[in-house]
Amino acid sequence: MSSSAETIAVAAKAAFAASQMLPSSERILALDVIKAELEANKDAILAANAEDLKAAQIEVDAGRMSDALLKRLDLGKGDKWDSMLQGVSDVAALSDPTGNVSYARELDDGLKLYRISCPIGVLLVIFEARPEVVVNIAALAIKSGNAAILKGGKESTRTAELLSQAISSGLAKTQLPATYIQTIQTRAEVSSLLALDAHIDLVIPRGSNALVRNIQNNTRIPVMGHADGICAAFLDQSANPAKAVKVVLDSKLNYPAACNALETLIIHEALLTTLWPEVARALLAADVHLQCDPATLHALQSLTPSPTNLSTHVTPATPASYTTEHLSLTLSVLAIPSLAAAIAHINAHSSHHTDTIVTEDQAAASAFCRGVDSAGVFVNASTRFADGFRYGFGTEVGISTGKMHARGPVGLEGLVTYKYVLKGDGDVAGDYGPGKKAFTHKKIDGATAPY
Amino acid sequence: MSSSAETIAVAAKAAFAASQMLPSSERILALDVIKAELEANKDAILAANAEDLKAAQIEVDAGRMSDALLKRLDLGKGDKWDSMLQGVSDVAALSDPTGNVSYARELDDGLKLYRISCPIGVLLVIFEARPEVVVNIAALAIKSGNAAILKGGKESTRTAELLSQAISSGLAKTQLPATYIQTIQTRAEVSSLLALDAHIDLVIPRGSNALVRNIQNNTRIPVMGHADGICAAFLDQSANPAKAVKVVLDSKLNYPAACNALETLIIHEALLTTLWPEVARALLAADVHLQCDPATLHALQSLTPSPTNLSTHVTPATPASYTTEHLSLTLSVLAIPSLAAAIAHINAHSSHHTDTIVTEDQAAASAFCRGVDSAGVFVNASTRFADGFRYGFGTEVGISTGKMHARGPVGLEGLVTYKYVLKGDGDVAGDYGPGKKAFTHKKIDGATAPY
Repeated sequence: MSSSAETIAVAAKAAFAASQMLPSSERILALDVIKAELEANKDAILAANAEDLKAAQIEVDAGRMSDALLKRLDLGKGDKWDSMLQGVSDVAALSDPTGNVSYARELDDGLKLYRISCPIGVLLVIFEARPEVVVNIAALAIKSGNAAILKGGKESTRTAELLSQAISSGLAKTQLPATYIQTIQTRAEVSSLLALDAHIDLVIPRGSNALVRNIQNNTRIPVMGHADGICAAFLDQSANPAKAVKVVLDSKLNYPAACNALETLIIHEALLTTLWPEVARALLAADVHLQCDPATLHALQSLTPSPTNLSTHVTPATPASYTTEHLSLTLSVLAIPSLAAAIAHINAHSSHHTDTIVTEDQAAASAFCRGVDSAGVFVNASTRFADGFRYGFGTEVGISTGKMHARGPVGLEGLVTYKYVLKGDGDVAGDYGPGKKAFTHKKIDGATAPY
Repeated sequence: MSSSAETIAVAAKAAFAASQMLPSSERILALDVIKAELEANKDAILAANAEDLKAAQIEVDAGRMSDALLKRLDLGKGDKWDSMLQGVSDVAALSDPTGNVSYARELDDGLKLYRISCPIGVLLVIFEARPEVVVNIAALAIKSGNAAILKGGKESTRTAELLSQAISSGLAKTQLPATYIQTIQTRAEVSSLLALDAHIDLVIPRGSNALVRNIQNNTRIPVMGHADGICAAFLDQSANPAKAVKVVLDSKLNYPAACNALETLIIHEALLTTLWPEVARALLAADVHLQCDPATLHALQSLTPSPTNLSTHVTPATPASYTTEHLSLTLSVLAIPSLAAAIAHINAHSSHHTDTIVTEDQAAASAFCRGVDSAGVFVNASTRFADGFRYGFGTEVGISTGKMHARGPVGLEGLVTYKYVLKGDGDVAGDYGPGKKAFTHKKIDGATAPY
């Protein structure tokens, strides 16, 4: 046991306990102050990010890092910086996820039961190299009343360190304990923390399936995993061709390195010589590599004129194609004979993240939505919509590929649990039962937390 | 890998997939039929239970089984049988926990997002020797749309076997697959099933802390543990004496073998010579053994006249006293100097099940409710109210001592997750962003599931 890890975990639990006695306004204040600290340090943070990017480019050039990872590192790209800060404000402006009553019953006269949302406790969040995640997660943890221990990817160390400093400076200007949000640097610390189930309430690993499974294998603490996104699109027999092309291209091309990008395209076999060639030509023209099963491969090879890039961009699929998160301009393709077969393929091969159907048939849409066992089941819409911002949560702590507690994009609601508060006046269970008093279980309308 | 375990798990997952395409009315039908099967076989089941009890009595007499366990075995005792059947009807009558929309937003014109409750999938439930639990859990699983694999305690094998046969006979009369509810007999099968995270979605172990921790250590599958109930009562400085005596006695004596029975009594030190002696005399008169810290021990030894049973029933506590689930007429007692110290003691020693405060001070009640990190935080009420029936859930699958997904008594709501359904018309993410379309995130009032 690393004593440093234990010190961190004990401090986090103590910070959580102390924070429970502060009003939630203090946490809003912390978010405002942290945003100001980030703005004040923008130049230094982006300079550190440029350093991280430079080091990463060397790794990419040497073939030791993927281009997809490099792209995720860049905090200055597009609207990333502004989105990050806006995310803090958005989270601060969202309604408090704690203190809400989701069940209230009068068990009997003067004996009232309330189920009240409350923070989970101490979160251990392990994430990839996207540096803005430090800020996203700190904001979500603070707003939801949880203490957090954060471990980012080593590739963004310089950026993450300055972001963490800004967060710490912000917290120091509030009544919240300085150890409310802590960052750690090494995998060894993570290993030690995974043993401390008395102090840590939830582990949130974001990354590969291997990372998530490794953590699940090595801790008793509940794990809310954000694993691979192996998202599929199914082109149903009744698919509208224009919608199919639009949805497939956006799902694949809008941001290929994202977990909600399309990795598998499933074609109803009735479309092999009609819609499939049209979709394939559009994908190939956009430089997408296709790993095809025999039927979809044969359909392309039989076309006249031959599609652009056929020889360079179309290859036979292997069984592994359908369980691979490409995160690049590669797409696995297969044909199936029925909607039921598409549902079965998805349930057996997808990562239960987000899958979409393109169809004009309401019955097919309903069967797909009922039958596909994934966090997101979409109809005639791009898989890229699977995202906390887009869903309206302000920001997200991850996209849960598990089913317990929270599923899909996880915002504030996924970071709270609840407790039952029962208020009586000396009430005892022995007064109830056959021949004695009966419970009324009368709903209390408009109940608010009694504390 | 036991091939038998894999066969069971694969069959359960297939049964779940098939059930997803049936209307929920089929599941209600199954519950009605199962109840009738149980009624028709009552005599045979109670005869088998008598056999189990006879075998258990031999174990108790030989000192190999606790009396508490024996008590839990008896299906004919009091209103247990009728409660069990009533539980099936109550669960059948409860509203469907699946298909409910908990979040609905128009992301933009014609692009609608729905969060819809749905079953979790395949449950593996491991429980103690209480035979009625087979029926409770089967009813909850069926009503909530989950397939289940059940493993009961070996002490109730004869009873559980007949209960399972009745359930199977019932299922066979419906469209639900015969493998929707399966029972297994051996720990070896449990071990094999714990490796099958592709087929099993949730493990629900009910039993000792050791059982729950052992399972948590040996599976990647999420665990909803029902571990020890180490419940505490705190008598605050302002406690009303009559309420204190009533609440403490009921919490301890109403059903000492239950997980929601009182195990630790915490006394504000201002009450050591006033309320404490009164409570202690009542407990001793009821044959309760007290394991006392020095302050509470000294207070009793100083009393004139000496309390009944002082020499036989009052002993010094050890540190282990405060982390022990006695499940018998033994109670651990300590004095503390403040409300804050009581909260800290409970957070460090209780099993986060249910804790109660006796107080007339609203501020103390609020601080206790905010500060105590347990599933149930009660004010002037017996810990024995922590129960799914009493909370109004119809029945319960267990009382979760974890914080994730479900906490406290777990009824139907704890057995569902949700999925996000997004319905568009060829909508793509690339159309949104700075300088392009914006999301509206308009709330859809009164939304119902679109499938």
